[in-house]
Amino acid sequence: MTRLCDLAPSNIRAIAPYQPGKPITELAREMGLKPESIVKLASNENPLGVSPKAYEAMQDALEDIARYPDGNSFALRDCVCRKFKLQPDQLVFGNGSNDILELAARAFLTPGTEAVYAQHAFAVYALVTQATGATGISVPAKDFGHDLDAMLAAVTDKTRIVFIANPNNPTGTLIGKQALRHFLASVPKHALVVLDEAYDEYLAADIKSEALSWLDEFDNLLISRTLSKAYGLAGLRVGFGVTSPAIADLMNRVRQPFNVNSVAQAAAVAALQDDEFVERSYALNQAGMLQITQGLAKLGLGYIPSYGNFVSFHVSNAAEVYQQLLKSGVIVRPVAAYEMPDYLRVSIGLHSENARFLEVLEQILQARS
Amino acid sequence: MTRLCDLAPSNIRAIAPYQPGKPITELAREMGLKPESIVKLASNENPLGVSPKAYEAMQDALEDIARYPDGNSFALRDCVCRKFKLQPDQLVFGNGSNDILELAARAFLTPGTEAVYAQHAFAVYALVTQATGATGISVPAKDFGHDLDAMLAAVTDKTRIVFIANPNNPTGTLIGKQALRHFLASVPKHALVVLDEAYDEYLAADIKSEALSWLDEFDNLLISRTLSKAYGLAGLRVGFGVTSPAIADLMNRVRQPFNVNSVAQAAAVAALQDDEFVERSYALNQAGMLQITQGLAKLGLGYIPSYGNFVSFHVSNAAEVYQQLLKSGVIVRPVAAYEMPDYLRVSIGLHSENARFLEVLEQILQARS
Repeated sequence: MTRLCDLAPSNIRAIAPYQPGKPITELAREMGLKPESIVKLASNENPLGVSPKAYEAMQDALEDIARYPDGNSFALRDCVCRKFKLQPDQLVFGNGSNDILELAARAFLTPGTEAVYAQHAFAVYALVTQATGATGISVPAKDFGHDLDAMLAAVTDKTRIVFIANPNNPTGTLIGKQALRHFLASVPKHALVVLDEAYDEYLAADIKSEALSWLDEFDNLLISRTLSKAYGLAGLRVGFGVTSPAIADLMNRVRQPFNVNSVAQAAAVAALQDDEFVERSYALNQAGMLQITQGLAKLGLGYIPSYGNFVSFHVSNAAEVYQQLLKSGVIVRPVAAYEMPDYLRVSIGLHSENARFLEVLEQILQARS
Repeated sequence: MTRLCDLAPSNIRAIAPYQPGKPITELAREMGLKPESIVKLASNENPLGVSPKAYEAMQDALEDIARYPDGNSFALRDCVCRKFKLQPDQLVFGNGSNDILELAARAFLTPGTEAVYAQHAFAVYALVTQATGATGISVPAKDFGHDLDAMLAAVTDKTRIVFIANPNNPTGTLIGKQALRHFLASVPKHALVVLDEAYDEYLAADIKSEALSWLDEFDNLLISRTLSKAYGLAGLRVGFGVTSPAIADLMNRVRQPFNVNSVAQAAAVAALQDDEFVERSYALNQAGMLQITQGLAKLGLGYIPSYGNFVSFHVSNAAEVYQQLLKSGVIVRPVAAYEMPDYLRVSIGLHSENARFLEVLEQILQARS
């Protein structure tokens, strides 16, 4: 094709789509493996699955699936308001938090404006920026984390969004509360700070985000949360943004009317109320993180200390090791696209899955030496 | 709020969000009614629910819900290819067909370009156009249907998309195959024709669309299909676009990587294979359309003959009648926003639901006279 596609905006034509973790079914097809023999530690999913309460809620929601979802997410909105002590008009719901990131970009970015994000930060920031025709400014990282001073220096009159991932994926780095708050106070009011807290549930109580309580102070702050990680609802797609009513209103104008499906809404309501499940998920992650990092250290591999439910480790010939892991039925995540060609990211799984990963990795490294 | 929101693009700030049909739960809250006493004939949903096979598939998909969906919709793609005799690279999957319409707009429209659609056509065409900053050209309708000659005359060098709804919602009008084919042959190749066939399953065999077989001939054609209507999966959000590989490739570049949830993918595969359920849905709709149109005629109300699973009827003081129907627990759809202030749209329901609607409507009209 021809004339029409050549007329599409050059920024759209230049997009290189996001590369997700390889699905189990895909690896099974490609390698002729049994799906149940495959360990997937590639997408930061919750190895415990979902809350049993969410499971029940999903079952119930199926009964009425021929009806359109509630476009206002009334019940879910009410639940989020109660849990986090928020007002209904501060909220925007998304088809996963990816949708929240995109809605922010579409509401504020146009050709001629700029978005600032950190090197090694979540790939979707650059993608949603590029799709709007705005200019993305990637600020070199400091010790794999956000260099806030450099990011602040990169903010210009044209900046409309600054993306901050805390903790960051795929590096697992965390910005301390004081530094973050100081940064927020320094960002000029013509730029929205999108604070992506997809992994907040994996933080210990004393370092958990307090940003929701800062919303009164910073009316250019958008906090993004997801149900895809600790809440175990990745397959259903639901996340939300919390911000000032004026910004929420703008984002809702570009939101598809039925962007969050009804099963996701029902599941999210139940999941958000099951603190016990999230605590179990947190505890499992803490133990698994220790298991994997100790295992990596034993193998003589460096890693970036991580505050998420994943860890990126250093290995030479990472692309080759990734392929060898695949052949043995273990899926991890290459992060070459994050300018980390000598790293692989492994999600924290069940004890047995972590053990299998370490075992296979050891075999691969031994066969090399 | 302040500086930041004022800096958002004026086209975004001016968007008036889509007004969906009122959810049953919302009416129940507002009027203090029992949800089970409410008849909703407002959103062209399938009153039979979903295929039992789809129901089973949804149940199964819940087991693995903590995993991200397959971003490539491999199994669903394969199913659609087999059913409609297509190639995998011709397909784009969406979070409902609303997503398909939006992806087309985002891939091709920018400020300075134009999209053409008909007066009284589905509201989302104008919304997705406005969100891109492009100019929407609404072409006056002819007998409530698309005036293809006038639409063709409205196409300029700046036109990038022409939206055609066939059948159209909310008018129910249908463009004949010959006229449509002639139109496609006349549209210049620098404009994409988005042919929205959300209601095709409600057409009799001899008037069903053949547009899928025209794709070889017209490489600027995108056919949009949904699982939300006859397939009964509105709550889950899944639809797809069929087009040339080059156009599909562009749309996939702006597609969110996990836009279609895994329950929707699994349900769609099962639903698309259950022809018997779609046949039953079609037959119920035919009978219900007769029941409702005869009932409207008996009440002396005019209506626009419809090829969909809904019919728009003429009633003076439509806004008031809508409110009175609500009070009696019957939800229909006002279409004033479609420049049809003297009409209401009613979806075809079960025999008992249709009867209840007609009964309540009769009471309202009698109380007036």
